[in-house]
Amino acid sequence: MQSLKVALVQRSCSGSREENITACGEAVRRAATLGAKLVVLPELHNGGYFPQNEESSHFDRAEPIPGPSTRFYSALAREWGVVLVTSLFERRGAGLYHNTAVVFDCDGSMAGQYRKMHIPDDPGFYEKYYFTPGDLGFNPIETSVGTLGVLVCWDQWFPEAARLMALAGAELLIYPTAIGWDPRDAVDEQERQRNAWVTVQRGHAIANGIPVIAVNRVGDEADPRGIGPGLRFWGNSFVAGCQGELLGEAGNDQDELLIVELDLDRSETVRRNWPFLRDRRIDAYGDLLRRYRD
Amino acid sequence: MQSLKVALVQRSCSGSREENITACGEAVRRAATLGAKLVVLPELHNGGYFPQNEESSHFDRAEPIPGPSTRFYSALAREWGVVLVTSLFERRGAGLYHNTAVVFDCDGSMAGQYRKMHIPDDPGFYEKYYFTPGDLGFNPIETSVGTLGVLVCWDQWFPEAARLMALAGAELLIYPTAIGWDPRDAVDEQERQRNAWVTVQRGHAIANGIPVIAVNRVGDEADPRGIGPGLRFWGNSFVAGCQGELLGEAGNDQDELLIVELDLDRSETVRRNWPFLRDRRIDAYGDLLRRYRD
Repeated sequence: MQSLKVALVQRSCSGSREENITACGEAVRRAATLGAKLVVLPELHNGGYFPQNEESSHFDRAEPIPGPSTRFYSALAREWGVVLVTSLFERRGAGLYHNTAVVFDCDGSMAGQYRKMHIPDDPGFYEKYYFTPGDLGFNPIETSVGTLGVLVCWDQWFPEAARLMALAGAELLIYPTAIGWDPRDAVDEQERQRNAWVTVQRGHAIANGIPVIAVNRVGDEADPRGIGPGLRFWGNSFVAGCQGELLGEAGNDQDELLIVELDLDRSETVRRNWPFLRDRRIDAYGDLLRRYRD
Repeated sequence: MQSLKVALVQRSCSGSREENITACGEAVRRAATLGAKLVVLPELHNGGYFPQNEESSHFDRAEPIPGPSTRFYSALAREWGVVLVTSLFERRGAGLYHNTAVVFDCDGSMAGQYRKMHIPDDPGFYEKYYFTPGDLGFNPIETSVGTLGVLVCWDQWFPEAARLMALAGAELLIYPTAIGWDPRDAVDEQERQRNAWVTVQRGHAIANGIPVIAVNRVGDEADPRGIGPGLRFWGNSFVAGCQGELLGEAGNDQDELLIVELDLDRSETVRRNWPFLRDRRIDAYGDLLRRYRD
């Protein structure tokens, strides 16, 4: 069995940039000492979730790639010999910003990047103000531990993104995430949302016969302007296997370092038994490229 | 609230054609008397699951559409005033057969048909021998109770099919199904399969913000030729709401008539909160029309 130990760093990220970077570094160190070869951080892990409102000063948080953060995380990956999936606020040029995942290989080299393609925008998550939709497409990143289909948060609701990664040879799907509740929502609505989030991603694992790793923030973050109700990130980071089975799952209320061992040979077996890629009706899928079939 | 009471007829179908048709008729009568306005039968409900092996005499079971079965089910729908989703073995011409769902409106008219687009083929499920892949595309069927995205069994593993139905205005996804275990498989493998089947379809509900109705056969069917181990259809028919939440679920070992009341207004609310259709990256989905991105 070709196995891979992965670490999911579920964190509260409400402190300063320095505090967050230090804590991420410490989590990577712990993960490596526990034997992890792939470490995934949550979305925009260097600071508080600023898209809670639209405030132009937040663009000061962005930085070029490569830049100070990539230098730090590159050195961290090299020091601990892990493949590291990070999530950064990229300043590509004046007035042009992206929500970008950067992957470092265990030698510290930048293995690749993915610019979030699907950008949400709803009360408390004003991401369309900050992030230009990605223009790098859905392309997996080659690393020494495998071909990684790195996507980001809102992408997780789109089966198209998962499928395109699988068709391009992704062996794992990885979603750094920042998703939480409106604290005013009823408990049953909150539970439906959390279960939907887990279920739709388990569905991507099943439909494509590859594991899914989702790493979320956790804990309360107040609205910096004191206008909105704030957000309660629900944690629940998890790993699903090639049949969507839960291999590990974190709780909903605290920081956790979740370590899961994956069997990378499993996908071949599962896809032989359920050969969905054999039977796709690509002759009849043309309208997937339309906005609506009206 | 605009509500719709649906009935899922989970059945064992191992008897004769006459026995099965009579039992389906009785189930529709019971469903109607319980107030159901939409009744869904399992896949190929008129007889045993003949694709357990490849045997040319089984083509004798096929019939034209319209034909004897459509006359029977049309009269049944009219008599009980229900929209009825049936699943038939269609003889379209000599040597040309389909696995076809036919929907009757409550006045007995044929509302539309769907020819199964994705055809499985694996040990015990030799469907590629019997069924030419459908050529009617993924088009919902208009009925007096709503626009129905009727798909069949193996289609349920393909997010593309669900999405195309939703993009064409389907208000519900409906899957007549015949899926079961190889009785020799270990219990944990059987559980992974059953959970995967439920989960991937709940994922379609979530990704598209519409309910899903899946109706399966149940019970053991021996291999008619005595060669294979037979099949144990796992039942577990269910209805999921627009966030993938389970609204009703049948057991795994017996016939059941499952009645569930759906709130048809819920989809509008859920899609406003999670507007996935707004954000699809149709500019970047072109490779979904490729077999593999190699």
